[in-house]
Amino acid sequence: MPPSSTPKPRTARSRKEILDAAFELAMAHGYAKLTMEGVAARARVGKQTIYRWWPSKAALALDVLNDRIGAATDFPDTGDITADLTTQITAVATLFNSPMAGIFRGVIADAQSDLRVAEAVAATFLGPRAEACARRLDIAVAQGQIRADIPTADMVELLYGPLYYRVLLRDLPLTGEHALDVLRSVLGGLAT
Amino acid sequence: MPPSSTPKPRTARSRKEILDAAFELAMAHGYAKLTMEGVAARARVGKQTIYRWWPSKAALALDVLNDRIGAATDFPDTGDITADLTTQITAVATLFNSPMAGIFRGVIADAQSDLRVAEAVAATFLGPRAEACARRLDIAVAQGQIRADIPTADMVELLYGPLYYRVLLRDLPLTGEHALDVLRSVLGGLAT
Repeated sequence: MPPSSTPKPRTARSRKEILDAAFELAMAHGYAKLTMEGVAARARVGKQTIYRWWPSKAALALDVLNDRIGAATDFPDTGDITADLTTQITAVATLFNSPMAGIFRGVIADAQSDLRVAEAVAATFLGPRAEACARRLDIAVAQGQIRADIPTADMVELLYGPLYYRVLLRDLPLTGEHALDVLRSVLGGLAT
Repeated sequence: MPPSSTPKPRTARSRKEILDAAFELAMAHGYAKLTMEGVAARARVGKQTIYRWWPSKAALALDVLNDRIGAATDFPDTGDITADLTTQITAVATLFNSPMAGIFRGVIADAQSDLRVAEAVAATFLGPRAEACARRLDIAVAQGQIRADIPTADMVELLYGPLYYRVLLRDLPLTGEHALDVLRSVLGGLAT
C-alpha cells in the first residue's frame, strides 16, 4: 500500500491538466490576461480545485515554469567548469528568448508587491537553481579551477545578475552571445 | 523675454506639486495603492492635468524617483576609480534600503507588462545612469586603472546586475556591505 503522501493518480492528472491549461493560455494571450477562471474553464475543473493548490495566478504560473523548464537548465559536471557553465548559460539564454520569458517577467512583476510570491520564487525557483550552481562551483573551487576567496554563493549572483538585468530592466536583448560574454568576463575575474 | 520652451512658473509649480503628492502618497500607503485620482486630489489639480504629462501611474512614479534621487547617485571623479565606485555604490545601496525601493520595485513591475514604461525606465532612469557610469569607467580605462578588453557598457552590467538581482529577485537584503563585496569582486576581475 503506498504511503498516504503519494498523490492519487487522479489528483496528479488534474494538477498536470491545470498546469498545461495555464501554460497554453499564457502562450496564447500573455501572462497579463491569464485568469484563474480561464484556467479552470480550460482544464475543466472548479476554480476551488486550483485555489486548493495555488493561492494566486503568480504561484500557479511559477509552477508552470518549473514544470516546463524541468531539467533543461540543470548544471552538468564534465569536470570542466568553463564548458559546463557555457552549456548551462546557453540553455538559460535560450529560455529567456522563448515565450517562457513572458511568464517569468509576469511572475517577477507580481513578486514585487506580493511577498508570498516573492518567497515562492526564492524557495522553488531561484533558490534551488542558485544552490545547484554554487555546488557545481564548489567542485570547481576544490579542483583549483576558480578562485577560493569569493563565496560561491556570491559568484552565482555575479554570473546571473547581469543576465536578469537585461531580462527585467533594460531595453537590450539577452542574446546567447551576450550571455557568454558575461560568462567569459566573470570567469576571467575568477580565474586562479 | 524667455524662450517659449521655458515652462511657465505656474506649470513648473504644478508639476512639482504633483510629484510631491505622488511621493507622499507612495510613502504613506505604498506603490500598489497609489492612484492618479489620489494624486490629483492631494495636489489639488484635475486628473487631466496629470495625464497631460504622464500617461500612467508608473510613468509618474518614475519621475518621482528621478526628482527625489537627483544627483545622489552621480559618479564622482577624484581620479581613483575604486574610491569613486565605492562612493557611488554605497549611495545606490542606501537608496535601495530606503522607502524609495518600494517605488522602484513598483515601476519595474509595471514595466514587465507595459512597453512604454519599460522604454521610459531605459530612457530616463537606467540608460542615463549606465552611460554616466560607462563614461567614468572610460576615464579609468584611459588611465590604465582597469582592463581595456571588456566594453565599459558591459562592465556596468557586471557591476549593477548583481545589485538589482537582490532588489528584484531574491529574498536576500542588498546591504551596503554586500554591494561593496560585489564591487570588490568585479573590480578584482577588471584589474589591469
